[in-house]
Amino acid sequence: MQLVAEHIDIGTRSPTVLLNESDAAELGVHALERVQLRWGERTAIGIVELTDELVSEGTLGVTRRLGHIEGDVEVSVAPQPDSVYYIRKKLDDIELEADELSQIVRDIYDERLADVELGAYVSATYTNGLSMEETMHLTESMADVGETIAWEVPVIADKHSIGGVAGNRVTPILVPIVAAAGLKIPKTSSRAVTSAAGTADTMEVLCDVAFSVAEIRDIVGKTGGCLVWGGAVNLSPVDDRIIRAETPLSIDPKGQLIASVLSKKKSAGSTNVVVDIPYGEGAKVESLAEARELAEDFNRVGDHLGMAVECAITNGARR
Amino acid sequence: MQLVAEHIDIGTRSPTVLLNESDAAELGVHALERVQLRWGERTAIGIVELTDELVSEGTLGVTRRLGHIEGDVEVSVAPQPDSVYYIRKKLDDIELEADELSQIVRDIYDERLADVELGAYVSATYTNGLSMEETMHLTESMADVGETIAWEVPVIADKHSIGGVAGNRVTPILVPIVAAAGLKIPKTSSRAVTSAAGTADTMEVLCDVAFSVAEIRDIVGKTGGCLVWGGAVNLSPVDDRIIRAETPLSIDPKGQLIASVLSKKKSAGSTNVVVDIPYGEGAKVESLAEARELAEDFNRVGDHLGMAVECAITNGARR
Repeated sequence: MQLVAEHIDIGTRSPTVLLNESDAAELGVHALERVQLRWGERTAIGIVELTDELVSEGTLGVTRRLGHIEGDVEVSVAPQPDSVYYIRKKLDDIELEADELSQIVRDIYDERLADVELGAYVSATYTNGLSMEETMHLTESMADVGETIAWEVPVIADKHSIGGVAGNRVTPILVPIVAAAGLKIPKTSSRAVTSAAGTADTMEVLCDVAFSVAEIRDIVGKTGGCLVWGGAVNLSPVDDRIIRAETPLSIDPKGQLIASVLSKKKSAGSTNVVVDIPYGEGAKVESLAEARELAEDFNRVGDHLGMAVECAITNGARR
Repeated sequence: MQLVAEHIDIGTRSPTVLLNESDAAELGVHALERVQLRWGERTAIGIVELTDELVSEGTLGVTRRLGHIEGDVEVSVAPQPDSVYYIRKKLDDIELEADELSQIVRDIYDERLADVELGAYVSATYTNGLSMEETMHLTESMADVGETIAWEVPVIADKHSIGGVAGNRVTPILVPIVAAAGLKIPKTSSRAVTSAAGTADTMEVLCDVAFSVAEIRDIVGKTGGCLVWGGAVNLSPVDDRIIRAETPLSIDPKGQLIASVLSKKKSAGSTNVVVDIPYGEGAKVESLAEARELAEDFNRVGDHLGMAVECAITNGARR
């Protein structure tokens, strides 16, 4: 079906298109289903929402994410992405191959998955877990999408804590020490998710934290280190989307956690990473045995990616 | 934060509200998070999407589902619904209590759950299953929401097939036979989901299939039976939403299947139900043992709800 693109300024997270209800009925698509869009030589996938009045028959309402679409658009029903079959496979507790994980990561990156499917992905990796092989493949695939930073020096240091007591703020002290010792440490931090302020929010009281990759290279070149907001750089866009699906469910499966941390470090060009693993009652990791096992897994995935990972197992009990 | 409602004609399936990005930042909410809306004496939950231009600062864009909202609206961050904790509990393979299942059903009915959470719910019931107790409670809860039909006669017959060969169309033959035998059979059918045509689509070639509950009562009163589209009556709205989440993932967990079928029958006022269970290679149920077990479960849940359920185990192999 041929429709004319009309820009509708809505900033949804998914590539939403608005179809008039009679056009949708003729195409045979329902809300939340996918359509293939073809304009000129280009194609994209849109997720359908319906309207009676906002766009008229013959018009395709394109939201902000699809704002590059202009003119006549050929709209057809899009097939289900392959990664949905792989998510189903994981729900059936069957180990995924490297190319299947890579396809899931690619489809999340291209925003081909609906939220229901993303919810099933994080649920499947939570209930059935990810093997060491799967975790390695997933980490590699996640590091492969989005931006990366290349450095001219042999050692790039970084640190990460998997989450202990909120607000203890080790990073603003540690980064200048490491930089003063002559190492390069391009540290990205997150804003608050559930606590009152994340490291990036805290640093923003003192200085700007939103910089591009070029600016980060420049700052680290001059000073040896930086403390910036990771959300301003597109280092691991897939991780951000997976976290968005994990957050409302308060789940953070081990394999996904390792892939999340190490894919970001790999994209940032880190070669030597210290990971803080707080353990204790109320912490993400409750026992010392569990902390040691997680540390070993971090080391193995790091080795596989060519990064030296050291884990510090610390007291994270909430008292 | 006080905002003024402005109607935006978008027919999303969830109760979407559009916030200007600076209002959202001030409130501290992100896309897909929930806000509590209060206008006059009334309240509702909205799921946030962001816009820069479509609604201006100080304005709350309300989509079609929230079209009853007018005037000044007090907007605040809404807490996470309790049912998210119960979904997480089910992901951890812990049996849910009656009131927890009832809260999940109520929150799906009130559209308080985001799609990511709905995806996790169907994934959890798929991977960890539902016990007989859970299935009974779920069926009751699902029958309790939406419309119900009450009849003045002691026996209301119905039939259902859990899905075998598409397009064999037993219903249009069976309903007139049952009605001619003097029984009441108010049969609702679905439109096509994956096949070319569902029973309702097929019937629509011959006559209208979209009727209200009052019209169905009238037709069945005159003729003894009907063949109508279930989507036109709000008999099991929660089931429709759960199926929407199951369909893209091609999952249909046993407990959820029983709850889906029997809650609809209960809402329609059925007292005597025949369930066709086709089994064989390529069918939903592959072995005779599995079919017999499912039949027994159908009987037990039927008993619990005060319905006589008879299962016919038939050959459903695809050849």
